Amino acid sequence: MALRLSTLFLRTLREDPVDAEVDSHKLLLRAGYIRRAAPGIYTWLPLGLRVLRKVEAIVREEMDAIGAQEVHFPALLPKEPYEVTNRWVEYGDGIFRLQDRKGADYLLAPTHEEMFTLLVKDLYSSYKDLPLSIYQIQNKYRDEARPRAGLLRGREFIMKDSYSFDIDDAGLDASYMAHRGAYLRIFERLGLDVIPVAATAGAMGGSRSEEFLHPASIGEDTFVRSAGGYAANVEAVTTVVPEDIDFTNAPAAEVRDTPDTPTIDTLVAAANELAPRAEGSWTAADTLKNVVLAIDLPTGERQLVVIGVPGDRAVDLKRVEANIGAHLAIGGEVGVEAANDVDLKKHAEIVKGYLGPGLALDAALLGAEGSSKLLYLVDPRVVSGTTWITGANEAGKHVFGLVAGRDFGWDGTIEAVEVREGDPAPDGSGPLEAARGIEMGHIFALGRKYSEALDLKVLDRNGKLAVVTMGSYGIGITRAVAALAESNHDDKGLIWPANVAPAHVHVVAVGRGAEIFEAAAALTAELETAGLEVIYDDRPKVSPGVKFGDAELLGVPTILAVGRGLVDGVVEIKDRTTGNAENVPLADAVKYILDRQ
Amino acid sequence: MALRLSTLFLRTLREDPVDAEVDSHKLLLRAGYIRRAAPGIYTWLPLGLRVLRKVEAIVREEMDAIGAQEVHFPALLPKEPYEVTNRWVEYGDGIFRLQDRKGADYLLAPTHEEMFTLLVKDLYSSYKDLPLSIYQIQNKYRDEARPRAGLLRGREFIMKDSYSFDIDDAGLDASYMAHRGAYLRIFERLGLDVIPVAATAGAMGGSRSEEFLHPASIGEDTFVRSAGGYAANVEAVTTVVPEDIDFTNAPAAEVRDTPDTPTIDTLVAAANELAPRAEGSWTAADTLKNVVLAIDLPTGERQLVVIGVPGDRAVDLKRVEANIGAHLAIGGEVGVEAANDVDLKKHAEIVKGYLGPGLALDAALLGAEGSSKLLYLVDPRVVSGTTWITGANEAGKHVFGLVAGRDFGWDGTIEAVEVREGDPAPDGSGPLEAARGIEMGHIFALGRKYSEALDLKVLDRNGKLAVVTMGSYGIGITRAVAALAESNHDDKGLIWPANVAPAHVHVVAVGRGAEIFEAAAALTAELETAGLEVIYDDRPKVSPGVKFGDAELLGVPTILAVGRGLVDGVVEIKDRTTGNAENVPLADAVKYILDRQ
Repeated sequence: MALRLSTLFLRTLREDPVDAEVDSHKLLLRAGYIRRAAPGIYTWLPLGLRVLRKVEAIVREEMDAIGAQEVHFPALLPKEPYEVTNRWVEYGDGIFRLQDRKGADYLLAPTHEEMFTLLVKDLYSSYKDLPLSIYQIQNKYRDEARPRAGLLRGREFIMKDSYSFDIDDAGLDASYMAHRGAYLRIFERLGLDVIPVAATAGAMGGSRSEEFLHPASIGEDTFVRSAGGYAANVEAVTTVVPEDIDFTNAPAAEVRDTPDTPTIDTLVAAANELAPRAEGSWTAADTLKNVVLAIDLPTGERQLVVIGVPGDRAVDLKRVEANIGAHLAIGGEVGVEAANDVDLKKHAEIVKGYLGPGLALDAALLGAEGSSKLLYLVDPRVVSGTTWITGANEAGKHVFGLVAGRDFGWDGTIEAVEVREGDPAPDGSGPLEAARGIEMGHIFALGRKYSEALDLKVLDRNGKLAVVTMGSYGIGITRAVAALAESNHDDKGLIWPANVAPAHVHVVAVGRGAEIFEAAAALTAELETAGLEVIYDDRPKVSPGVKFGDAELLGVPTILAVGRGLVDGVVEIKDRTTGNAENVPLADAVKYILDRQ
Repeated sequence: MALRLSTLFLRTLREDPVDAEVDSHKLLLRAGYIRRAAPGIYTWLPLGLRVLRKVEAIVREEMDAIGAQEVHFPALLPKEPYEVTNRWVEYGDGIFRLQDRKGADYLLAPTHEEMFTLLVKDLYSSYKDLPLSIYQIQNKYRDEARPRAGLLRGREFIMKDSYSFDIDDAGLDASYMAHRGAYLRIFERLGLDVIPVAATAGAMGGSRSEEFLHPASIGEDTFVRSAGGYAANVEAVTTVVPEDIDFTNAPAAEVRDTPDTPTIDTLVAAANELAPRAEGSWTAADTLKNVVLAIDLPTGERQLVVIGVPGDRAVDLKRVEANIGAHLAIGGEVGVEAANDVDLKKHAEIVKGYLGPGLALDAALLGAEGSSKLLYLVDPRVVSGTTWITGANEAGKHVFGLVAGRDFGWDGTIEAVEVREGDPAPDGSGPLEAARGIEMGHIFALGRKYSEALDLKVLDRNGKLAVVTMGSYGIGITRAVAALAESNHDDKGLIWPANVAPAHVHVVAVGRGAEIFEAAAALTAELETAGLEVIYDDRPKVSPGVKFGDAELLGVPTILAVGRGLVDGVVEIKDRTTGNAENVPLADAVKYILDRQ
């Protein structure tokens, strides 16, 4: 049944709402698709709900096509499973928590790994039951510190989340790739350009992870890509590691007085004066900067680490956060910041501005009160045989010609410094350039983190209990609607891709004659009989300008105007995307539109 | 695509789960339709979700058919609108409350009157926009003190709630009747027997209200009905009011000493001894019992009322709770209980056991410390001219022949006493009998309670602002699934009505021969090509007994067994409802099944 604008629960707005920041948010509000109920919490009006359901249907079809089975979990969940995996603590302020009348703790789930794991544990017991992929399309909750951009970062939102269960790594790989393929098909059907981007697994744990980013200037995610097809989010970019250098003939390192050189700039200037280079000058890239960072662990403890990086590169704390986990004894999300004076006071061996490597290895310096061995990590560019100008761990002194692997060692390497445009892609596909995107989906080869924590084991082929390996895969459904609006609009309004438009045709009766409304109603009925969904603007006393304005604002792909041309037997058919309009004989109008679907 | 039991995410249970109380709960758990996530909170497995979606689809179609438009509100809502209507307070422990990271109060909505009212206020401004009916199918939350019976009384559940908006009472009546009709069609399509039962509006407010009760012995709602078609819940039953009696010739009332007669029984015995009746004996029905009740108001105050009722009838506190509102100055849900000693102490004029009417009217008794005029209400049977034996407001004394309307008055009448089987139906359709039912739906002609509180006004035909009148209508979707299971099962398992069954046909391959599995797979494919949904039990190593047991447990209407008969060219087709099985030639099987749909 056609949506008649005379009765449709809709009110379009002429002006941009004051609190809407981005185009998609403004237009979805102005076109009456959504309304705000609370910060980051939205109500779906009839047209918005139609778009939402179409997105859901496409996602559902592609999940079913890879054999995933739909289930539906509650949003209100008990605390206990999230305590077992420590996420009850790790999520901090990021989730909504509440108590029931008996004082039992609950949360509004941000994601359901624990519950799916427990459900499979409840139902399954043998490798013969695997592989299994199950999913849901369901309300999720996150208490975002700064909900923004309407549906793009909401506090109540709809996600499709799925979980795969396999007996071994090969199975997980197949499940992961099946989801990856399904995701690419989903975004293609939605008409949403996405780039799969290598990502770090972060707090989710696991071995492999990719984000599906929709390139958009308003995106919150920064990523880099090369002309040759490499793409990764900034946290996940890996450095091209230089080859080791033979240091057999390298001269011995030499400590020099370098008073008043606590910064890299002053050090470089001093070096060029004290010990000019044979060719060219010393630059910041020849110095090794040792940075002390404080890691706030999920346990509430605070641990210091020292990271040695080339002096020309700034430390990127988000990259440290994403990559430090492998070097810590415990898992979970950590906070990273520069060590402050209170931190440094506990380590008398740290000489600010003159910190060098080897510090933690120098037994003579250990044992000072409150002191303990500090973890020392280096940038991957610090390979054996590289030669550095760096601090001598003594005020006013630096050491020149210090050779990595000969004069100092390290506990491990870490991707800790900024990625720059022009850096080489790790796969050799050319220099990197930066871009911004909206995260539309994220897939994780989780491995055994959750199944181990929650003891999900099944009998394997040999009759022995084996821990199941898992994947977790999410698509933001409400966010997809926003991203579609963000990338499909002009200054007049929305321009929906055909697959998700709230209707196929927007019929506008222009003018006042009864014959116009009769012809428009007849065309509406014919189009519907032919299987198309129609919005019919049958409002009797609304001006043509307002009607056309609303049609362009609502953004249905084809606009069919029945008006003055009717006396000559023609109607106007306009393509909302191209703006092209044609006069078509009344009798041919339905066929003309059907041919374009 | 057929649901193949070799891969379907399903595990059936042989034994009844220990914590399941009612048949529907046991069977939905055993058949793998749902799993418990927390008390009163359930997860839907693939088969359960299919039933749920079919129920939703039927509800949606019938709502759309009456022109209601679907929207979708958040479940997480800000406190403020619920404060305006006082429901934030009135709900007490019955709702889930929480705070966000900024300390703002939220609730998980149990119902959405406030939000729909505000949304219409946001969008609409004229009587021309009305009538409007909008609805949603959405998660609801109630923190039940005793979640029970699985899906029948859950804490997270799915409801269809709709709201109508009209400019006048005639409009509201039309919207109410449209919903009423839609509800009857919904339950008919679901195959769910329901009785529309007159109900009190309770805390929802409003003028008219009906519950749709599904008769079931495990139902929580008691109602009464007559053979002639009357039905009402016990709170809403009205008494057949006798005609006034001419008291012109009635003798004067007489106070008598009746020591040691503080109860009705002792009073009746004393009356028969002291002043024997001309014909027959005095019975409890001839006495007027005056009961002091304490009303706990939503404001936290406590008010006493005295209710005069025939001595043979007990006071029904739930009926008082439902009906006292009309006599109180403020709205909202109240608690009612017998007055306790502390209450009574504040009213020196109350003589326990000898309380009579007229007390509050006796000016001489008023003005005692802490005393105030008590509201005096009577049962509708106390009409002018009726004659009573009742307390004389003095210890050890009763008054005989006290005539209502001559010797005492009252502030109002109230339905306060128990309804008994055998009482006449108020519409003259015969004696009442008691029954139990499950509340499947509830419709309310709300009137202007919410629109007044939230200031929803539109311009009327005369260009003046008029308060909109509203209706509110709910159907429990998850509860409908449970009620269907409760009323459609035998000792072997579930027996789904065709419209909501998870599939139309359950094909069972019985035996081990490859030809059996080939034939079963071919039939499955043919049935699906013909448009039927099929569960195919293709498990290779499961015994026939287990397969048939599972088929009967799952409850799909038609079971098609391919087994030993195949050598003779026949398959067995069994009707799950009747239990009738027939051997049908293989070639005719699909047509045979299609003819039965």
